[in-house]
Amino acid sequence: MGRVTQRRRVTTIRADGSITDGATGSVPRTASRLDQIAVEEPLELRLGGESFTVTMRTPGHDFELAAGFLVAEGIIGSREDLRGLRYCAGTDERGNQTYNVIDAELDAPVPETVRLRSRNVLTSSACGICGTTSIDAVEKTLARRPAAQLRLKVETLLDLPDLMRTEQQIFRKTGGVHAAALFTASGALLCLREDVGRHNAVDKVVGWALTQDRLPLSGTVLQVSGRASFELVQKAALAGIEMLAAVGAPSSLAVDLAERSGVSLAGFSRGGSINLYAHPERVDTGEAGRDAQAARGRHQGHESAAS
Amino acid sequence: MGRVTQRRRVTTIRADGSITDGATGSVPRTASRLDQIAVEEPLELRLGGESFTVTMRTPGHDFELAAGFLVAEGIIGSREDLRGLRYCAGTDERGNQTYNVIDAELDAPVPETVRLRSRNVLTSSACGICGTTSIDAVEKTLARRPAAQLRLKVETLLDLPDLMRTEQQIFRKTGGVHAAALFTASGALLCLREDVGRHNAVDKVVGWALTQDRLPLSGTVLQVSGRASFELVQKAALAGIEMLAAVGAPSSLAVDLAERSGVSLAGFSRGGSINLYAHPERVDTGEAGRDAQAARGRHQGHESAAS
Repeated sequence: MGRVTQRRRVTTIRADGSITDGATGSVPRTASRLDQIAVEEPLELRLGGESFTVTMRTPGHDFELAAGFLVAEGIIGSREDLRGLRYCAGTDERGNQTYNVIDAELDAPVPETVRLRSRNVLTSSACGICGTTSIDAVEKTLARRPAAQLRLKVETLLDLPDLMRTEQQIFRKTGGVHAAALFTASGALLCLREDVGRHNAVDKVVGWALTQDRLPLSGTVLQVSGRASFELVQKAALAGIEMLAAVGAPSSLAVDLAERSGVSLAGFSRGGSINLYAHPERVDTGEAGRDAQAARGRHQGHESAAS
Repeated sequence: MGRVTQRRRVTTIRADGSITDGATGSVPRTASRLDQIAVEEPLELRLGGESFTVTMRTPGHDFELAAGFLVAEGIIGSREDLRGLRYCAGTDERGNQTYNVIDAELDAPVPETVRLRSRNVLTSSACGICGTTSIDAVEKTLARRPAAQLRLKVETLLDLPDLMRTEQQIFRKTGGVHAAALFTASGALLCLREDVGRHNAVDKVVGWALTQDRLPLSGTVLQVSGRASFELVQKAALAGIEMLAAVGAPSSLAVDLAERSGVSLAGFSRGGSINLYAHPERVDTGEAGRDAQAARGRHQGHESAAS
């Protein structure tokens, strides 16, 4: 398929602001470059033409994914149970075949119990299901875009994973649960929740906010322990969270949805550095101030050299 | 709730078999102890008495989880939309309240589009839904228990994460996708798949096996990059995989299901050491051989001392 990775513009910020560049007196801590990220796209699986489920996946080996999913659901057990798999011949709005809809033909009629389990997910049932379809569906349920009142220092942002880790009580005991922690712009912890499911940890934080009557969560940043998927950005956007920062990598669709829905997205947040993938304008890197300072320093240097 | 962690018997094996114990001439590389693991239990969410979804979660803050999930699904947007949440008054087979079923009363009638999205998951709809219910449901769909023909050396097992990593092409580019890799008892790689979703990576491996007509996967071990959840053990058991080895931690329900379904389960597999949580009998630690060798050594030592 060749659609497993994509190049995206990413802004990397390093904590180390040490002065090593003799010419200007300061090294920019911020660098922009193209980076490879893993592709995430929806795959709709149909049974005999009827929609059964939609899963977010990295394209490639899609027929195996479909077959393995049917084994895991107890619907087929051997190759004989599966008469065939084919891509649905649909296209997206640009006329491109999306390769995102697979129809499975079973050897036996689809049992009624299986048909009842079909998950009618919030996506277009058009054959051209694609990332854009999924983002459109989220945008339709967004009451409003997240506010633009959050502005936080990069030092605060870099501290969040450590601040979260010190409060992770279940992780300290078990070494194995995810966490989501909501912070203010100044790095004050509002709510931290842990769970074996990272989506559950985020749901718990948003549920806390709802019971506290604090939705939408304007002015806040959500730090999560794992990776940033489409689903996590969706949950943040729906709760009005202005920024999502993940310890791990983001997927392509997470970046796309963050960009479109107005959520700032950070990844690979590991204390010493962080990558910004969408709406970096909420992060104050202090570069303007330091540049001004460096300029003043150079100016003073020139003056003292002249005196 | 106090049900967030549980103590379980775990066998830890270290790669380092260095001799440091003067009394016996060898230190057992295998140690058994009680360890804390994160609890995973199903939570059924009902809307006005009708089952809507079941999610696997760590108990605690369940009302927040339910409320946050409803926000994420676009069903409620503020506290006013949610009239109330209560635990269903059901019990498990021992008569204990499970606290695993929550009924949400919405302010408005449940929209038809939402009712259509209800996910009829493979669990009992009894109020006493619990881990046992979930395991029973899996056992019902298991055609047979995994075979008992796998026997692998601990050194082979310890090498699998590195073997997998060297073959992870998407991870090398992006630093951010999960992987699942199927190996033989001698550590030969049969199939490796990568995906942003770890369940998808496993589905792809199982789907590969189905298309190759290799199900059930007797005599194989599946190495995964993340944690071991109930769902991953379920997928392994249904495919007849004899052992699941995770780089991260297992959940309580993953251990319970592995124990009951006959799958060997390993966690925290990080090159230097590994934890065995269920059916350790498939792993040959070489202890018997080394003990015999050590005994021979001691015997010879005594002889030479006597001569």
